[in-house]
Amino acid sequence: MKICQVERPLVSTNRIAMMEHKHLQVVIDGSSKLVAVDAVGAKPGDWVICVGSSAAREAAGSKGYPSDLTIVGIIDHWPPPGSETDEAAAGGGADSGEGPAASSGADSAGGEPGADKAGGA
Amino acid sequence: MKICQVERPLVSTNRIAMMEHKHLQVVIDGSSKLVAVDAVGAKPGDWVICVGSSAAREAAGSKGYPSDLTIVGIIDHWPPPGSETDEAAAGGGADSGEGPAASSGADSAGGEPGADKAGGA
Amino acid sequence: MKICQVERPLVSTNRIAMMEHKHLQVVIDGSSKLVAVDAVGAKPGDWVICVGSSAAREAAGSKGYPSDLTIVGIIDHWPPPGSETDEAAAGGGADSGEGPAASSGADSAGGEPGADKAGGA
Amino acid sequence: MKICQVERPLVSTNRIAMMEHKHLQVVIDGSSKLVAVDAVGAKPGDWVICVGSSAAREAAGSKGYPSDLTIVGIIDHWPPPGSETDEAAAGGGADSGEGPAASSGADSAGGEPGADKAGGA
Amino acid sequence: MKICQVERPLVSTNRIAMMEHKHLQVVIDGSSKLVAVDAVGAKPGDWVICVGSSAAREAAGSKGYPSDLTIVGIIDHWPPPGSETDEAAAGGGADSGEGPAASSGADSAGGEPGADKAGGA
Repeated sequence: MKICQVERPLVSTNRIAMMEHKHLQVVIDGSSKLVAVDAVGAKPGDWVICVGSSAAREAAGSKGYPSDLTIVGIIDHWPPPGSETDEAAAGGGADSGEGPAASSGADSAGGEPGADKAGGA
Repeated sequence: MKICQVERPLVSTNRIAMMEHKHLQVVIDGSSKLVAVDAVGAKPGDWVICVGSSAAREAAGSKGYPSDLTIVGIIDHWPPPGSETDEAAAGGGADSGEGPAASSGADSAGGEPGADKAGGA
Repeated sequence: MKICQVERPLVSTNRIAMMEHKHLQVVIDGSSKLVAVDAVGAKPGDWVICVGSSAAREAAGSKGYPSDLTIVGIIDHWPPPGSETDEAAAGGGADSGEGPAASSGADSAGGEPGADKAGGA
Repeated sequence: MKICQVERPLVSTNRIAMMEHKHLQVVIDGSSKLVAVDAVGAKPGDWVICVGSSAAREAAGSKGYPSDLTIVGIIDHWPPPGSETDEAAAGGGADSGEGPAASSGADSAGGEPGADKAGGA
Repeated sequence: MKICQVERPLVSTNRIAMMEHKHLQVVIDGSSKLVAVDAVGAKPGDWVICVGSSAAREAAGSKGYPSDLTIVGIIDHWPPPGSETDEAAAGGGADSGEGPAASSGADSAGGEPGADKAGGA
């Protein structure tokens, strides 16, 4: 999965019916811009996990959905606390943004209060 | 999904029967040229959303269609109003073209008059 | 789909049985060389359309065929008449070759005499 | 499959339910960072084999799992003993780490004691 | 399909059960190293054809096999006789190796004696 930063929503009025009304986001992947279906409700500045390949389809809402890139998670802390990139405040493409769970200490797989807020597709 | 600009139609008389008579467009992806099946009726200069992977097949018209890149939407405004690229009028590969909905204000997911004009495949 | 130029046939005597006896071509994609199953009968110098991903399999002849790149069409004119590349006679990787339908005028989706000559796989 | 080095775990509290509670790792692939589902229990510094494409889904635990990159094995010795990279102690991206089976001699397909410790997904 | 050169076998003792005991090879693709399942029995120095995408799975032995890159053929002559690369003896990544059928003349699709020696997976 790629680590991308959400830049802004993308509006495409004239699109195939199969796309339904799902939200599209412009995301920055290194130095290129891509479009991803947003399955979690991210906002500009969020660092997100984007899945591609055939997995992107079902992650967007159904096996037949026409997506090849879908946002499946918002990263709690990026760049990670204590990493070089974090200290240099470079943080890749656009300005460093931090995900919703901003407390610096407790990074645990179990999650923090308010976990699993991501809506389904 | 990639953000590409349509350059021109591609003519290939000698092609496998599975491709039927669907229109092919040469699109510019950064600095390389690709060929995409056109599922929306784009024209040269349009900025479009192109889906790849297995999703491109069904988006082109049927689960078995032999496409790995399909135009699924025309972007309303590209580059987006107020972005650096917009002000610099650089706009990527070829000349900046703007999609059909040229009014600068109302960018909304709901769409503008004349929405959903994209034909199916 | 990629726009590639056919360089030469590729001979691989020691190959898995699933590949049957289908012809393989070395094709030039920008600056790299790839191998594609030839589903149309192209010759060295031809500019061709190559499909990848899961679509390459069925395009090569059957859903289970082990291909990830298949030549599905020969481009009528490449580079296109009137384009910069055409005037500069650069034409990418190897020497510019032109597809079978060499008349410069009538580029139409409907095709020219002798259309749909591509055999199936 | 790619040869990557595990950098650290990735925490994403706000993620789609389909991802369940599987562990994610940030891995270094050359000069870029990716996120992979960990199906073997790797630790930071391990050199691992990562599978992508549709294979990543089932390797992560089920046919429908939304992964496009899954760690499927830990490499016994990387860089391999006696290779240039090994002597130069360059070893790619981050510091060279060696997989669990650190004895320098017996590289055999049959495995060493403690083989097949990888749990399923 | 990619044209790669086999560098050496890869040993990974700690790997998911789905991978069974199939042989893995480190292959050189241009300037990067990848891991491929070996379905033909190649040896270091061989120039091989590697298939990716969903085709790699069945080519490795079964529809569900977790591979995204599988060696499906050994190239008879690489670089091809008479090509620039052949005369310059550059031959890409590592030293130029030639496939099993070393006679310079008879390159034919029909194959040479001892054809189809590749075992199934």
